[in-house]
Amino acid sequence: MSKVDIDTKILDKVNSPKDLKQLSFDEMTELSDEMRKLIIKKVNTTGGHLGPNLGIIEVTVALHYVFNSPVDKFVFDVSHQCYPHKILTGRKEGFTDTDKYLKYTGYTAPEESPHDLFKVGHTSTSVSLATGLAKGRDLKGGNENIIALIGDGSLSGGEAYEGLNNAAVLNSNIIIIVNDNDMSIAENQGGLYANLKLLRDTDGKAENNFFKALGFEYHYVADGHNIKKLVETFEKVKNTNHPTIIHIHTIKGKGLADADERREFYHWILPNALDNKPQPAFETYDSITADYITKKYEKDPTVVAISPATPGVTGFTRDFRTKAGKHYVDVGIAEEHAIAFSSGIAKNGGKPILGVMSSFIQRTYDQLSQDLALNSTPATLLVFWGAISEADATHLCSFDISLISNIPNLIYLSPVNKEEYLKMLDWSVEQKDYPVAIRVPFGNVISSGTEDNTDYSQINKYKIEEKGADIAIIGAGNFFELGKKVKALLSKKLGINATLINPHFLSGIDEELLNSLKSDHKLVITLEDGIVEGGFGQKISSFYGSSAMKVLNFGGKKEFTDRTPLEDLYKSYHLTPELIVEDIEKTIK
Amino acid sequence: MSKVDIDTKILDKVNSPKDLKQLSFDEMTELSDEMRKLIIKKVNTTGGHLGPNLGIIEVTVALHYVFNSPVDKFVFDVSHQCYPHKILTGRKEGFTDTDKYLKYTGYTAPEESPHDLFKVGHTSTSVSLATGLAKGRDLKGGNENIIALIGDGSLSGGEAYEGLNNAAVLNSNIIIIVNDNDMSIAENQGGLYANLKLLRDTDGKAENNFFKALGFEYHYVADGHNIKKLVETFEKVKNTNHPTIIHIHTIKGKGLADADERREFYHWILPNALDNKPQPAFETYDSITADYITKKYEKDPTVVAISPATPGVTGFTRDFRTKAGKHYVDVGIAEEHAIAFSSGIAKNGGKPILGVMSSFIQRTYDQLSQDLALNSTPATLLVFWGAISEADATHLCSFDISLISNIPNLIYLSPVNKEEYLKMLDWSVEQKDYPVAIRVPFGNVISSGTEDNTDYSQINKYKIEEKGADIAIIGAGNFFELGKKVKALLSKKLGINATLINPHFLSGIDEELLNSLKSDHKLVITLEDGIVEGGFGQKISSFYGSSAMKVLNFGGKKEFTDRTPLEDLYKSYHLTPELIVEDIEKTIK
Repeated sequence: MSKVDIDTKILDKVNSPKDLKQLSFDEMTELSDEMRKLIIKKVNTTGGHLGPNLGIIEVTVALHYVFNSPVDKFVFDVSHQCYPHKILTGRKEGFTDTDKYLKYTGYTAPEESPHDLFKVGHTSTSVSLATGLAKGRDLKGGNENIIALIGDGSLSGGEAYEGLNNAAVLNSNIIIIVNDNDMSIAENQGGLYANLKLLRDTDGKAENNFFKALGFEYHYVADGHNIKKLVETFEKVKNTNHPTIIHIHTIKGKGLADADERREFYHWILPNALDNKPQPAFETYDSITADYITKKYEKDPTVVAISPATPGVTGFTRDFRTKAGKHYVDVGIAEEHAIAFSSGIAKNGGKPILGVMSSFIQRTYDQLSQDLALNSTPATLLVFWGAISEADATHLCSFDISLISNIPNLIYLSPVNKEEYLKMLDWSVEQKDYPVAIRVPFGNVISSGTEDNTDYSQINKYKIEEKGADIAIIGAGNFFELGKKVKALLSKKLGINATLINPHFLSGIDEELLNSLKSDHKLVITLEDGIVEGGFGQKISSFYGSSAMKVLNFGGKKEFTDRTPLEDLYKSYHLTPELIVEDIEKTIK
Repeated sequence: MSKVDIDTKILDKVNSPKDLKQLSFDEMTELSDEMRKLIIKKVNTTGGHLGPNLGIIEVTVALHYVFNSPVDKFVFDVSHQCYPHKILTGRKEGFTDTDKYLKYTGYTAPEESPHDLFKVGHTSTSVSLATGLAKGRDLKGGNENIIALIGDGSLSGGEAYEGLNNAAVLNSNIIIIVNDNDMSIAENQGGLYANLKLLRDTDGKAENNFFKALGFEYHYVADGHNIKKLVETFEKVKNTNHPTIIHIHTIKGKGLADADERREFYHWILPNALDNKPQPAFETYDSITADYITKKYEKDPTVVAISPATPGVTGFTRDFRTKAGKHYVDVGIAEEHAIAFSSGIAKNGGKPILGVMSSFIQRTYDQLSQDLALNSTPATLLVFWGAISEADATHLCSFDISLISNIPNLIYLSPVNKEEYLKMLDWSVEQKDYPVAIRVPFGNVISSGTEDNTDYSQINKYKIEEKGADIAIIGAGNFFELGKKVKALLSKKLGINATLINPHFLSGIDEELLNSLKSDHKLVITLEDGIVEGGFGQKISSFYGSSAMKVLNFGGKKEFTDRTPLEDLYKSYHLTPELIVEDIEKTIK
C-alpha cells in the first residue's frame, strides 16, 4: 500500500454512501475538497477524465446523501464523471493508494460494484437506460428512485433526446440531473445551448424552456457546488411520482486555477499533463490531416472539415478551428447528423471531410447506408484510431471494418503510410462518384519517402508490392508492416519467397489479382487490424472457397476486451510474425 | 395509354412547377381536389402511402407556387408524402395513366427528376440533409432557398433533433416545414407531442415552444389545407437569412370520409384496401408473436412488448395494444432509445420483447453494441422481414445478419418454422445471460407439426437434420427450405446423399460439428437470406480456410437493389436449386 500525501480526514470515515449520511454540510464540503485533490493527483498520474469529474463532486456527494444507492439507481451518462461516485461507493482506494490507481476502470462497471448499473462509455445513453430501469421497476411494482445524470454536452445526441421524449411520458418516478457546465469536450454547438444559457442567465425562469416544452417538471440550481442547496433540491424531488429535470450549473474543472481557460485541455489528460512540461512537436496523422485540410480550403473555398464534438481525435486543434472559420463545423455530439450533413454538403457542391473516431462511427450505420451510400454523395470520412488496442471495453476501435465494408456503394480505403494517406485523401475529396471512408493509419507516422502515384479511381485494385510464390500475404492498413515481417520470417525460417500485397481497399476484392495467384500460390493469409468476423479477410476466404487455395484470416476476435495489454491480445489472436509463421507451417505441412 | 376516369382539367395545364404560378387560388384548390382523387385511385390500385400524401397536397401546391424548384431545394422526410410533389414536377402520368402507375417509385428519387434531391425512405433525415445543402450553398456563395419538410411523427427520431439543433445555429437560410397531422404511423408518443398539441390549441402562442426554445423563428398555420394562407406564410419567409420553422396543422387522410377513425389503416395500404372486402384471417408470424406475448404477460406481469412506432410490422395490432395496457410501449420513431430502453428494463427485472423491421434495426448498431451487448442484458429483439426482397432500395431487409452477427455477446437466432420460433422466443424471454435477437421467419407460416425440444442454451449448437456424405448443406432460417430442395436435386441429379444442417445460430459457428464434417465431406454450402458479405456463410468459409474443405456461400450481393423482381434477384445470385446444383457440379468436378 502506497498512500498518497493528501489529508483525507473526512473520507477516512466514508466507506459507503450510508456513512455520508452522518456528515454535516461543512464536513461534506471538506470531503469534496479532499476528493478534488485526490482526483487531480491521480488523473495527473494515470491520465483520464479530469474536468468532468472535478465539476460533479458536490453534486455526487449530495446525491448519495439524499438517495439510497444501490436501491435507488444512478445512471451516469458516458460515465466520464463517475470518479466521485466511485470514491463514495467503496472504491476510494483507487484514489488514495497509488498501488491501486489502475484497479478500477474510468467508467461505471457493474462487475466492480452494485452501485454501478451499466458499463457505459458512449454518450447520450443515460436517460434511455434509466427510463428502462423505471419501466422495469413499474412492471415489478417497485418504488425506488431512478436517477439519470447527463452533461449538457451529451444532450445534443439524438439518443438523449429520444430518451427525454419518452421519459417525459413515463408517468412515474424518474429524476434527470442535467449537469450544465456550458461545455462539451470542446465548445458546445447547437440551438439547445442558447436555451441552456438563457436558462442560466434567468435563474431558470426564461419563457421558452426546452425541458418544460417536453413536459418535465423543472428545477434550476444556480450553484452546483453548494451542497446545502443541492440537498434541498434533491429532497424536494425524492420519491416524486412523475418525470423531473434538475438543471444544475457547475464549473467544469472546478478547483484548477486556470480551469476556465483550459477546459477543453482538462477534459481528458495524459499522465503528468498538469506539470506543464513542454510537449515535443512531431508529425502525427492528426497534424498531417489538419495541414492538408488547411492548404486545401485556402485554394478551394468549398472544402469544409466537420467534427462530431471530438476535434481532438482528428487533429482539429483550437488553432486549426480558429483559423478555419467557415471551413470548420463542430456539429456537437451528433454523429448521425454529421453523416447526413456531410451528404447534404456534398450534394450541393461542397467538399466535406468528416473526422470521427472508429468507436463512434458505430452510431451511424443507418446514416452511412441511407443518407450517404444510397445517395452516392462524394463525402470523405476519416476514421481515426481504427485498431486492436488496450482500450476500455467501451472504446474499442476494432469493429469499423466489419461495419463499414459491408455497406454497398461505400468505399473503405486502408493507407499504409503517409504518402498513401495523402494521395487517397486528395483523390477522395476531388472525385464525384462515391462516398469514401479512409481508415487513417494508427500509431507513429510511417513514410515511404516517395510520392504515391496510385490511381485510386480503379476501385478494388490491390497492389502487389513484392512478387513471390507459394504463399501470398495480404497486409491491410496498419498490418502491412506486420506483413513485411511475416515475409521476412518466412524467408528466413522456411526459405519461402512469399508474395506481399497491399490491398488499399477494405470494401471489396480484386478478383483478377486473386485469380492470378491460383497458378503459383497454395496459401493466402490476410492480416487486418480489427475483428476477423465480418471483416476484410473473410471476403477473401469466401472468394477462394470453390478453389484449392487455402486461406488463413488473421485479426481480432469478436469480443469485448477491457484494458487488456496489447501483447496479450496479439498473443491470443496470433498476431506476431512468429505465431503467424507457426500457423502457416501447420497449414502447409 | 390508359387514362384514369378522373377529370383533370386544371392538372392538364400543369406540366412543371412554373405552370402552377399562372393559376388563381381557386384553380389551385380545384387542382388539389383533382390530385386527391388521382392519389386515392392510384394507391387503391397499386398500394402505397395514402394518408400522408392526402394530408400534404395543399402544402405542396403552395410550396411550388411560392418557391422556384429545383433551384430552391426541397427535402422530403422519409418521402412518404412526395406523391403530390411528383405530380407537380413532371411525373403526373404516374397517376393519370394506369399503364404508368408503376413507372415511378413511391419515394423521392434523383434519377427520376432534378426536383428530387435525395433517395429517402427512412425517417427523421430531412433536416440534417437540408442543413448540409444549406452549408454547401453557403460555401459556394449561392442564395437559393433550402426547404426541409418533416412530419410530426418523424420528429421523435434522434437524427431529426440533431438536425434541428444544428439547423438552428446555421445563421443563414433554411426553412423547415413541420407537417403536423397529430399522427405517426400509429398514435404519436412522447413529450414533444404534448407540446405540439399545446401549440395547436393556442394557435401557436403557447408559452413553452419546443422550436423557439431551440432558437428558431416560428410561424403557425392552423389550416394546412388553405392554400391562400399557406402562400402568404411561405412568401413571408422566402429568402429569409436565418433558420425558420413553419408549423402547419394538416389532416392525415384528408378527403377520405372516415379518415379520422382509420388514420393508421390509411397510412400505407395494400391494393384494393379501400374496397372494404373482408380480409381472410389466417395465421402469420405476426399473429403468432402477438398471441405468444399476450399469453405470456397474462402469466408474468414483467413481460412488455415494445415497438418503435411500427406496430403493424410486428403484429402489435390496435386490439393487441389496447388489451396489453402497460405491457405494451410504443416509444415513437426512436429505434436507438428502444434498444437502450429494453436494456434498462431487462436490467431491472423486466422481460422486454422489442419488435423491429430489419431495415430499421440499422439505426441501432451502437445501441446494440454498447447499451445492450456490452451489458449482457437479457432483452429479446425480434427482427421482422429479414430477407432478400423486391423492396424499394430504401427498405431492403438483407443487411441485418451482417450487422447483428458481428457484434460480440449478441446471440442471433434463425428459426425455420413456427415451432422453432416459439421455442426460441420463450427460451430467450426466460433466460438471463444474453441479449438475443431472433430473425422472425419471413413469408407464410411453416409448421413442422411437432413441438421443438431443442435446448437453445447450448450456444452455437447446429442441428444435423439429415446425415449424409460428400456435401453438407447449411440452410439458415428462410433458406432452410431451399436447402431441402437442393438436397433433393443433388440426390436426383447426381445421386449424392447430402447432409442437411439447420444452424439455428447466425452469430457463431459450431466448431465441433464443422470439424466432424471433414472426415466424409468435401464441400459445404451455406444458404442465407441476406447479403453474403459479412454474413453467416463467410464465417464458415473462414473456419475451413486451413483445410481441404471447399465452401460455397450463397446469398445476396452487397448492393442496393430497387424493386427488382425476386425471380431476377434469385437468378442473379444463384439462389434456385438448379443454379446451386450447377455451381456445386463445377466445384466438385
